[in-house]
Amino acid sequence: MKTHMDLSKFYHYAFPMQAIIVTCNDEKGQTNPITIAWHSPISKNPPLYSISVAPSRYSHNLIEKSKEFVINFIPFSLVEKVHFCGSYSGRKIDKINQSGLTLDDSEKVKTKYIKECFAHFECKLHNMIVLGDHTLFVGEIVNILADEDAFIDDKLSKKMTPCYYIGDCVYTTIKNIRKKI
Amino acid sequence: MKTHMDLSKFYHYAFPMQAIIVTCNDEKGQTNPITIAWHSPISKNPPLYSISVAPSRYSHNLIEKSKEFVINFIPFSLVEKVHFCGSYSGRKIDKINQSGLTLDDSEKVKTKYIKECFAHFECKLHNMIVLGDHTLFVGEIVNILADEDAFIDDKLSKKMTPCYYIGDCVYTTIKNIRKKI
Repeated sequence: MKTHMDLSKFYHYAFPMQAIIVTCNDEKGQTNPITIAWHSPISKNPPLYSISVAPSRYSHNLIEKSKEFVINFIPFSLVEKVHFCGSYSGRKIDKINQSGLTLDDSEKVKTKYIKECFAHFECKLHNMIVLGDHTLFVGEIVNILADEDAFIDDKLSKKMTPCYYIGDCVYTTIKNIRKKI
Repeated sequence: MKTHMDLSKFYHYAFPMQAIIVTCNDEKGQTNPITIAWHSPISKNPPLYSISVAPSRYSHNLIEKSKEFVINFIPFSLVEKVHFCGSYSGRKIDKINQSGLTLDDSEKVKTKYIKECFAHFECKLHNMIVLGDHTLFVGEIVNILADEDAFIDDKLSKKMTPCYYIGDCVYTTIKNIRKKI
């Protein structure tokens, strides 16, 4: 039996989606991490990845000015840090220091990556498009680093457990089953 | 230890992503289903949802002409049907008939939804944007139907197991754990 759902909460029905942490730089080169659940690959060649950010967010202005960002994929064991980076504004606090996350230098962009994450897409801003009440930041991926054991034959290792957001402060992860068809 | 990954396979490192089935209509009103892994909410108000489709795909032309589509969220138990709809072209076969999936009428669009799926976003084309080698079809969600027991308080029920794509014909699903922070 089908029932009507609340249109204003539509994105809840598309969850769980992987919660990633995007890092970006302020004008002094200090790193701000923001948790993003709305993101997707959008082109193979060139390799483009989109993230949706509301204009009110501190990171919106930072990415617009610095024209780059890094996408960091984080394990479920660090879910509290994911939630922390999505719950506070970098305008008021230093989220890297307060979360205990640590940074390392990227290779092709100035923005640093988060060491505790297992994969990192270094992106240069390809374009930004206002769509409704969010901005779609389209990044061209110029370099990818990852933990040596995170992927096997370019597929996520069974032992890896990414972090998935369900909505309203609730998270889950994937099963380690793999069904090949 | 971090290592370099293959830029041409970047989307594999963002998987698992939920594999959804998008339905769209040809000029005779016949339904074509296509499996999509690249998709995301992109605006709350208006409620916008994006799917990325390569121009070579049969559905690309159908959505461009009909200016609507339906997003269907499918359980892991039907993973073979997900894979089937992603592996063949509607130019050559009637994928609905051959998959054994069944259709029912949507309420606000002409395109039908797949009954065996647990949630359905009825979308009218808001705009389409060429980004790299894919087209971003942006749909405005005008109606949502779902199985009565699929969501509890607008969050996915623990008993639901959506279908997630890992790449190269391999799929998984989520755990039924829920961590609230």
